Amino acid sequence: MEKIRKFFQDKDLLARTLGFELLEVGEGTAKARMTVGQMHLNAASSGHGGATFSLADFAFAAAVNSHGRLAVAIQTSISFVKAPLEGDVLTAEAREIALHPKIAVCDVAVRDQAGDLVASFQGMAYRKSRELPV
Amino acid sequence: MEKIRKFFQDKDLLARTLGFELLEVGEGTAKARMTVGQMHLNAASSGHGGATFSLADFAFAAAVNSHGRLAVAIQTSISFVKAPLEGDVLTAEAREIALHPKIAVCDVAVRDQAGDLVASFQGMAYRKSRELPV
Amino acid sequence: MEKIRKFFQDKDLLARTLGFELLEVGEGTAKARMTVGQMHLNAASSGHGGATFSLADFAFAAAVNSHGRLAVAIQTSISFVKAPLEGDVLTAEAREIALHPKIAVCDVAVRDQAGDLVASFQGMAYRKSRELPV
Amino acid sequence: MEKIRKFFQDKDLLARTLGFELLEVGEGTAKARMTVGQMHLNAASSGHGGATFSLADFAFAAAVNSHGRLAVAIQTSISFVKAPLEGDVLTAEAREIALHPKIAVCDVAVRDQAGDLVASFQGMAYRKSRELPV
Repeated sequence: MEKIRKFFQDKDLLARTLGFELLEVGEGTAKARMTVGQMHLNAASSGHGGATFSLADFAFAAAVNSHGRLAVAIQTSISFVKAPLEGDVLTAEAREIALHPKIAVCDVAVRDQAGDLVASFQGMAYRKSRELPV
Repeated sequence: MEKIRKFFQDKDLLARTLGFELLEVGEGTAKARMTVGQMHLNAASSGHGGATFSLADFAFAAAVNSHGRLAVAIQTSISFVKAPLEGDVLTAEAREIALHPKIAVCDVAVRDQAGDLVASFQGMAYRKSRELPV
Repeated sequence: MEKIRKFFQDKDLLARTLGFELLEVGEGTAKARMTVGQMHLNAASSGHGGATFSLADFAFAAAVNSHGRLAVAIQTSISFVKAPLEGDVLTAEAREIALHPKIAVCDVAVRDQAGDLVASFQGMAYRKSRELPV
Repeated sequence: MEKIRKFFQDKDLLARTLGFELLEVGEGTAKARMTVGQMHLNAASSGHGGATFSLADFAFAAAVNSHGRLAVAIQTSISFVKAPLEGDVLTAEAREIALHPKIAVCDVAVRDQAGDLVASFQGMAYRKSRELPV
C-alpha cells in the first residue's frame, strides 16, 4: 500500500500543483489533505469548488486503484455544503462502497479542521485490465 | 458582461493557478479554455479529472453569475468520456438551462481541439440576494 | 414523527401505486421498503432502476420533510451497483448529512434482504418557508 | 428500430404500470411520453420525482440499447426544475452523447406540453457483450 501511496503522491502532478498530501491508502480506502491557500480561492474569496473536488478526486483515485489494477474515473457527483475559507485544513476520506470486476463506486467525505462536512462526493471508476505501473 | 468576465478572470485565483482563460461571458453563458500542461496531469499521465472539472466549474460560475447576482455552486455532476492528453486545448462552454429566483441549472460541455467531447458537466447554483461585487 | 410517517404513507400516491411501505421516520431519517414484483421489472426482467430510485426518493422525501417544513427535491444522483430480482425485498435507509435554512442533503442506501448494496442515492432538497400540511 | 421500440414498450413492466408510451427509437435516441395522473402524484400533490425519473430512465434505456447490445444503467443524475401537475403531458427525449465499447452516456430532457423543461437527466450505461433479446 505504501508503494501505491507513494506512486500517487509523486506522479499525480495536479495534486502536487495544488499542494495535496496523500496521508494513507488502504484496501479500497484513502485519505488526502490540503490547506486552503490563496491559490485555491474562487472569485468570492472562498475555497474553490474545483480545489475541493480535486482533493476528493485524488483520494477517490488512490482508493479505487489500491487493488493494483488501473481504474479511471468515469462519473462523479459532488454536493457542496459548507464554503471553506483560507487557512482551513480539509481532509478527504474515501471509502469504496462497491467493487465489481469492471466498476468500482467510492464515497468521499471532505471535512474541515472542525470536523464539519464541506462536501460529499461519489465517484464511479472503470477498472481496466492492466496493472497500475507502480 | 465584460466587467463580469474581467472580474472572474482576475479574482478567481484557482483559475489563475491552473492557467484558465475566460473567453466570453453572455446572459447565462460562458466559455473558458485551457491547454493541458504537465501541471494538470494525473498519475496515469492524462489530463486530471480535477483540472477538467475546475475548467467546467469556472465556466459554470461565470454563466450563473452573469446576471449580476451572487450564485454559489451547491451540486455538480460530471461524466468523463475521453481522457485528454498533454498539449490538448480544452474549451468549456456553459449554458444555463433553468433560472429560478433561488436556483439556476447549467450544462457545460468540455471539448478538445478536435471538437470531441471530453466531459459533460451539469451544475446547480444557489442564488443569494446580494450583488456580485464587480 | 408518526404523523409525518402517516402523511407520506397515505398521501404519496406513487408510493401506493408501487406498493412501498414507509417503516419509520425520525429527525432527518427515514426507512422505506418494497418487495420487487412483476410490476417493477424492466425489459431485462430485473428490478427497474425507476422503482429502486422511487423507493430511495420516497425515503429521502420523508427524511428531509421530517422537520415539519416543506422540502422539495431539486437534484438527485444514484449509482446502481446490483440488479435486484423479482421477489427481492429492498430497504431504503435515508439519513440527512447536511441541513441548512434553505438546503438539505440526504444519503440513501438501498439494500436487499441479504444486506447487499443495490443502489447508493444522494438527494438535495430545497426547503420552502411553508409548513408541511400534515 | 421498430423491433426495439416494441420490445421496450411490451417488456418494460414498470413502464406499463406507470402508463408510459415509447413513441420512437432511433440510433442512440428515444422519445417517451406520459400523462401525469393521480397515481403519479407525491405527497405535495405534484408529479412525483420518481415518475419523472422513471420516464427519463425508460427513454434512456431504449436509446442506449438501440444498437442491439444489452446496456444497463450504472449511474444517473437528475435536476428537477419545474414541478409537473396532474394532467400535464411529459415528453422525455433521450440522446446519446458518448458511445464507447463498454460505456454509453445519454442526456434526457423532460418537457411538459408547454415545452418547459421539467427535468434534466444524464445517465451512464454499461454495455454488456450479449445481444438484446428482441
